[in-house]
Amino acid sequence: MIGSLLKPELAELIRQRSFNQLREILCEFPAPDIAEIFTDLRPDDEAVLLRILPRNLAAEVFEHLSVEDQEQMLQALGSEQVAQILNDIAPDDRTALLEELPSAATQKLLNLLSPAERKIATDLLGYPKSSIGRRMTPEYVAIKQNWNAGEVLAQLRREPDKRNSMNQLYVVDDQGRLVDYVRLRNLVVADPQTPVTELLENQNLALRATDDQETAIAAFKKYDVTMLPVADSKAVLVGVITVDDVLDLAEKEATEDIQKLGGMEALDAPYLKIGLFSMIQKRAGWLAVLFVGEMFTATAMGYFEDEIAKAVVLALFVPLIISSGGNSGSQATSLIIRALAVRDISLGDWWRVMKRELVAGCALGCVLASIALMRILLWPHKEQVYGPHYGLVAVTVACSLVGVVLFGSVAGSMLPFILRRLGFDPAAASAPFVATLVDVTGLVIYFSIAYQILHGTLL
Amino acid sequence: MIGSLLKPELAELIRQRSFNQLREILCEFPAPDIAEIFTDLRPDDEAVLLRILPRNLAAEVFEHLSVEDQEQMLQALGSEQVAQILNDIAPDDRTALLEELPSAATQKLLNLLSPAERKIATDLLGYPKSSIGRRMTPEYVAIKQNWNAGEVLAQLRREPDKRNSMNQLYVVDDQGRLVDYVRLRNLVVADPQTPVTELLENQNLALRATDDQETAIAAFKKYDVTMLPVADSKAVLVGVITVDDVLDLAEKEATEDIQKLGGMEALDAPYLKIGLFSMIQKRAGWLAVLFVGEMFTATAMGYFEDEIAKAVVLALFVPLIISSGGNSGSQATSLIIRALAVRDISLGDWWRVMKRELVAGCALGCVLASIALMRILLWPHKEQVYGPHYGLVAVTVACSLVGVVLFGSVAGSMLPFILRRLGFDPAAASAPFVATLVDVTGLVIYFSIAYQILHGTLL
Repeated sequence: MIGSLLKPELAELIRQRSFNQLREILCEFPAPDIAEIFTDLRPDDEAVLLRILPRNLAAEVFEHLSVEDQEQMLQALGSEQVAQILNDIAPDDRTALLEELPSAATQKLLNLLSPAERKIATDLLGYPKSSIGRRMTPEYVAIKQNWNAGEVLAQLRREPDKRNSMNQLYVVDDQGRLVDYVRLRNLVVADPQTPVTELLENQNLALRATDDQETAIAAFKKYDVTMLPVADSKAVLVGVITVDDVLDLAEKEATEDIQKLGGMEALDAPYLKIGLFSMIQKRAGWLAVLFVGEMFTATAMGYFEDEIAKAVVLALFVPLIISSGGNSGSQATSLIIRALAVRDISLGDWWRVMKRELVAGCALGCVLASIALMRILLWPHKEQVYGPHYGLVAVTVACSLVGVVLFGSVAGSMLPFILRRLGFDPAAASAPFVATLVDVTGLVIYFSIAYQILHGTLL
Repeated sequence: MIGSLLKPELAELIRQRSFNQLREILCEFPAPDIAEIFTDLRPDDEAVLLRILPRNLAAEVFEHLSVEDQEQMLQALGSEQVAQILNDIAPDDRTALLEELPSAATQKLLNLLSPAERKIATDLLGYPKSSIGRRMTPEYVAIKQNWNAGEVLAQLRREPDKRNSMNQLYVVDDQGRLVDYVRLRNLVVADPQTPVTELLENQNLALRATDDQETAIAAFKKYDVTMLPVADSKAVLVGVITVDDVLDLAEKEATEDIQKLGGMEALDAPYLKIGLFSMIQKRAGWLAVLFVGEMFTATAMGYFEDEIAKAVVLALFVPLIISSGGNSGSQATSLIIRALAVRDISLGDWWRVMKRELVAGCALGCVLASIALMRILLWPHKEQVYGPHYGLVAVTVACSLVGVVLFGSVAGSMLPFILRRLGFDPAAASAPFVATLVDVTGLVIYFSIAYQILHGTLL
């Protein structure tokens, strides 16, 4: 918004190289707005602007750029500026950038860091991908239990660079193990003589650095806090994770799940930013797999070729029946994948889910069956369109619908459980994947029922 | 977790009516954990436990219950306790509860509030549904520009009930209009004589109370803050919204989008909590609509009945072709709906999207077409299975695949834009909805191409 309004004016100033005026204009905006302005500019112009910003603001603006823009920017900047930016930005934002780069590039950038920052960066990169350790920052304030409020405040004044994570102050013992925490707001209103022990929250909530990032999302949702401490396997405090990162994570995980549910690999980049070829690649893989699976429908139909030749009317209902199974499967699988992701249900609930889906599948199947019965039996020229045995055809279609919708609901709901049990991502049970499974099975159900009901009349 | 571990022990203590011991055990846990313990108990037991908790803790535990549990709890508690709880809980949590109740019940509960709290509650309920006003709390700290740090701290000590939203302190003018803000952490480390003007952030970011809640999610993602001020149309500060509410909102919106994408109404409750009948209702509606739409496939197939009778081999590929169109449509629509929801793209980008999907659709169609060509032409008994004209059949299938996948990609990507343009929720363009659209069109594409290619030979 702001970006597009200012764009022509800024472009003009850049062309005129009026750097002082540019600096003045930009400094009036918060860093996230400047970052938004930057994304609309050419990388070279971005680099020019970043260079003229005050050092702290430059780092903050850089933190707010997307990883793709950060990569471009690093290439446009001189190595001295790259070193400065990388040393200045927050350790968690740095990890997010470094983990996306090829390892040779990461190594080169790590060498630009000061020894202290390099130690922090390599420590954080040492945690497994998608673990909480990869998103935490070691910039927390640790305090001792035997201090008083005044002493804590004095400590805060000594650590100005930790201001981003000062809302909670962590009490650690002599081995660095997390004991409890104090909220800044309680400390502020307390008398300076108040001992820390009187301000404790009596809570020792800590995330584990090696745990999956989904655990962090669940914990923030449950405890309504703005930051949580992260401990290692020996309960030693190693960092904190802040809610802004968790909000981004939650959005990213939901995006990935939606894309997987749509039947493709997660794009890992905004739609308009990802290269057209990469996007086609990420879609072609699953589309081809589904296509090969769907080929079994041709095989199944081939098996019933004689029946179709005898009663072409059966072929008319094939798309209707298999798509109804696919749709009910898509509903069930979307419900269960999301419920598993937000932890409304866990692996152990599979039997309760199965029971619900058996009932729901039957009920939904009956709803569709009655619509189909009405459609066929109340159709004006039914004998012409569906032949003399239209009644039997109607019963065949209705029974098949109940069977197919029931199968779709059960298969769609159980597949995510099975995938998770086998250690895969449940979201791989995409709606198209379930639909393909149900299409093949649905054809077998339909033609088997048709054979039973129409044997001796049409078949 | 904690809930299930403690459950037998607590149930035993409730049976023995050992309230002192119960209170002691419960008070050791943070409120969110107690709330988790509660959800596993019977409503009567929950009410008993809530009654024995200290007043502040009881309110906090109540805030952490789901709205469904809160409703049950209100029925199990006496009206005096209901009044106490409702007066004590945070205004934003209260709005979330009251807006879900039937209006008669809401009115009854409003009458239990103190005049001051009732004014707050009715003001908040006066904002439109899904607006930011419905999720804000008026419990913020307002300060004056001509104060110094010491005066602000004195003010904070006078407002202990506003501690939940003290991380940012809002500077307002004499008309109550928002001017700027100060971060608590900067105030704390400053000398008490420091004037507020020296601590200002020089930022006036405010959300509008009547704006949609999605705006709040986007703003929190952009600015990485823990709270944002909310102003009315005259820029007067009326409340604040905190990041914990926004995290919940973001998760809820993603869940709704996933469920709609799966082809159903959003459930509005966790899978295992919603009544089986309500769930079936929310699924049956869309399933029936899709079914009626899918009936046109039977009509379309009926139109080509003679062709099928002449060349049954054509029927074999019907499921394969229409499902490929549905799958590519499902990919495109999932991508676009999510990109619109997280604001990666806006309505104005439709032409850029269209161009990308035209290329992607062609490419993906060609991939599937080549797999199909290989499958038919390299099949060992191709003449027996596909007849003497298997080559022409293969060409027909391949051309249809390109057409259908291209149509699926374009229709799936454009439908969300069209729906949003018409004022509907783009997520209503569910994967099954697109698949149904593509199924009917796909049949027409397939049989038209077949007629052109096979006319004079098979047809």
